[in-house]
This record gives sequence, C-alpha cells and structure tokens, in this order.
Amino acid sequence: MSTRYKIEIEYVGTNYFGSQKQVKVDTIQSKLEEALCTLTKQNIKIILSGRTDKGVHAAFQVAHFDCDYNIYNNGKFLHSLNGILPDDICVKNIEEVSKEFHAQKSAKKRHYCYTIANRKVRSVFDRHVLLYPKPLDENRINQALSYLIGCHDFSAFKASNSQNPAKVCNMYEAKCIREGEFLKIHFVADRFLYKMVRTIIGTILMIEKNSFNPSKMKEILDSKVRKNAGMTISPDGLVLVEVIY
Amino acid sequence: MSTRYKIEIEYVGTNYFGSQKQVKVDTIQSKLEEALCTLTKQNIKIILSGRTDKGVHAAFQVAHFDCDYNIYNNGKFLHSLNGILPDDICVKNIEEVSKEFHAQKSAKKRHYCYTIANRKVRSVFDRHVLLYPKPLDENRINQALSYLIGCHDFSAFKASNSQNPAKVCNMYEAKCIREGEFLKIHFVADRFLYKMVRTIIGTILMIEKNSFNPSKMKEILDSKVRKNAGMTISPDGLVLVEVIY
Repeated sequence: MSTRYKIEIEYVGTNYFGSQKQVKVDTIQSKLEEALCTLTKQNIKIILSGRTDKGVHAAFQVAHFDCDYNIYNNGKFLHSLNGILPDDICVKNIEEVSKEFHAQKSAKKRHYCYTIANRKVRSVFDRHVLLYPKPLDENRINQALSYLIGCHDFSAFKASNSQNPAKVCNMYEAKCIREGEFLKIHFVADRFLYKMVRTIIGTILMIEKNSFNPSKMKEILDSKVRKNAGMTISPDGLVLVEVIY
Repeated sequence: MSTRYKIEIEYVGTNYFGSQKQVKVDTIQSKLEEALCTLTKQNIKIILSGRTDKGVHAAFQVAHFDCDYNIYNNGKFLHSLNGILPDDICVKNIEEVSKEFHAQKSAKKRHYCYTIANRKVRSVFDRHVLLYPKPLDENRINQALSYLIGCHDFSAFKASNSQNPAKVCNMYEAKCIREGEFLKIHFVADRFLYKMVRTIIGTILMIEKNSFNPSKMKEILDSKVRKNAGMTISPDGLVLVEVIY
C-alpha cells in the first residue's frame, strides 16, 4: 500500500524549460523526480498543481507523488532532498496526505504576481523584475485590470500556438500595488491559459504607452482576438506565489 | 582646467577582489576606471569614499575623479557609461562638484548593513544574506550592540593582518532590526577597520550560540585582543548602504 506525499516547492525558473517534464531538457519536474528517485531508490512520478512556463519562478508550488518509502523513517529526508537538488530548486515542506488529495485537480485557485521596476536606471540588485523606464500610473492600471475580474473567455490573451480548447477562466482578483519604485501586479484565478499573465502585462504596458483609455482592456478581452492584445512580456518578472486548495 | 565629478555607484561585490585597485585582478575601481577611460579617452583615476572588502556589496558608494571632459556635452553620458560597465556595477548618478569635495576625506560617516536570514531551510530567492538556522533574539543582540556605541579602540575586531595603526572608531549607531525572518544589523561610524563589521557579526553569533551574557561584547571590546572575538563571517551578507558627507 503506497503512501501519498504532498510537497511545497520553491524555484528560480531561469535555467529550466518550464516546470513540466520534457525529453532531453532540464525541467523542474525532472529535477525533482531525479532527486526523489535517488533518495528513495523508487521510480517516482510527481504531479504538479499546474505548469509554469519556461523562465517563470515559483515562491510556492505544490506537487504530490505516491511511493512505498516512509519518509518519516528518515529524520533528515527534507534536508537530504535539498542537498541533492540544485541550488535554484528547494522543497520547503513534505507531508503525508490522503489519497483524495490531488495537487492539480484539488487546487481551487492559483495566485501569480508580476513585478515591474518602474525607474529609468537598472539596479545591480534587480532580480525577477521587468525594468520599465516611463512613469506608470497604478490607478489607471487598476482600472484596466478591473475589466478582467469575473468569468470570461480569455482567448485574446492565449498563446497563438495554444492547443487547449477551454478558454474560460474565473478571475477572482487582478490588482496593482505600488511599493516604492516597484509595481506588483497580482492575479488570482481558478486557472490560467498558457502565457496569459505575461500577455495581460504586455497589454497593460501597450495601453499605458499609448495613453489609451483603460477601457481598451475590456474591448480587447471582448474581441477574443489575440492580435488585439499586447506582446507577451519576459517571464523573469513572473512568480507563482500561491496555490489555494 | 579640469573638472571634478562625483559619482554614486551600486555594485554586487561577489565577482571582485574588493573595491580597491590591485594588479592583475578585477576590482570595482579598475572596472570603473576602464569604463570612464573608454568613454572620455582620458586617463582617469577615481578616489572611492573607502574600501569595501572582497565580496562585499554596495547599494550606495561614492567616488570622485578629475578630468577635462565635459560630461554635460554628452546627453547620454550616464547611459553610455552603464552600457560599458558589467551588469554587476552601475553608476546611479554623476554630477560636477567643487574641487573642495573629496570622496574619502569629506565623508563624515559610513553606514553598513549585514543581513541574516534566520530560518532553517535555504530559499532559492536568498541573495546577499547569511543563512542562520537557530532562533536569534534581536533584543539580546541589541543589548550586545549597545556596548559598541561611542568612541572606542576596536582592536578586538580588526583583521589579524591589519597594518593601519589607527584603531579608534566613533560608532554612532549599532542596532538590529527584525523584518520577519530577516535580521538587519546596521552600523554607522566615522570609519571602520578592515573586516571589522564581519568580525562583530561573528562575535554576536558566538555570544548567541553559547548563550553568553550580552555584556560579553563589552568584555571583548575592552580586551582589545582579536582572538577573544568571534570568527570573521562571510562577506556576502554585507552591504555599504550610505556614505554621509
């Protein structure tokens, strides 16, 4: 009778081809499975709460896996696991859960945050931010974001090569908070389409750059046409900050 | 008639052998002088407000230099300079100053901050912090630090190979502030001895680890004997945050 474990993970995505396992390239999933297999001597497959794209980071990602190994028989399991993992991936917590828990299917909401450093000159301490030199108005941005809240077809912000036919997401929160020079743009939804957050950020910057009315966002959303939206912005500013069960 | 310029600099010290120019190794000074020479086609020597040790960072460092080049004739001087400099060094500001200004001699106070991440597990987002797993009590640390405030001979915290005979520093501020998991330990003094801040931090950790009375700090300070103090801690947690004129 195998045991199901839930793990909470943190990673810097810069050096990985996204979270999901792929052939011949390093991904978060492959690195975690390798480390778990090394430690347990079992062939472990993990299920993540959802995919993060190439270059996107996570301050809080969740996965589960089943195995016959009892991690509680090894007082240093977590410590050993982090010793094997590369420095840019860290398991913060591991615990036994019931077989009803499913990291992907049980997840109710995902929370992402995109950070913009809104100043002219780069800083040597900048990490995981987009440098944007022209002044941004968080009130106008919040007005534009407000049109995204609710249940909508987000086709306008989907990746052009997206295969998934389901385009409806329920956006619970979309807001911009200024912390000094930094703008933190938060999104909480039941699900996100591939590249959706980064394309919304690109659309915000397009609206601001051209001084469009913030209601332009509603127009683009309603059009459901990808080419009306802005460009897909760099993944480096994007962090998965929470998965809510 | 040459012009004196003051520059404000930011750097991550990890890849440099300290700030001061040395033969055959990369330092902050050599990189700045190279970039300024490239841009002005003049042989420029800069004077920094003071040395930072190998691996120490600066959020605010100051230097001056004299040259015949008028930077105001080039609207993009700062932008071009930062284009030439490596990513881990950035000049934030440049301005003409009177010949009476001297980056080192005019400086009244230096402000350093050392950051400790006080938690068991490393984080992939840790940068320029010391990870310390056992709980630290900021009240006890502040009590120990209080003995350092004032005009003292800091011989107990000097580098063992220090050549400079002047060991008296006037410490204006020494305090520890907790920000969640992070302890930020601030020092403001007229001058600092080589490795002094890092040896004070090592002494604090020695006092905490052994549950010594915080007055142990006074005992060590008064002894003026280096071997009574703790070890010199990693430079990665140390940042020069301000130079006050």
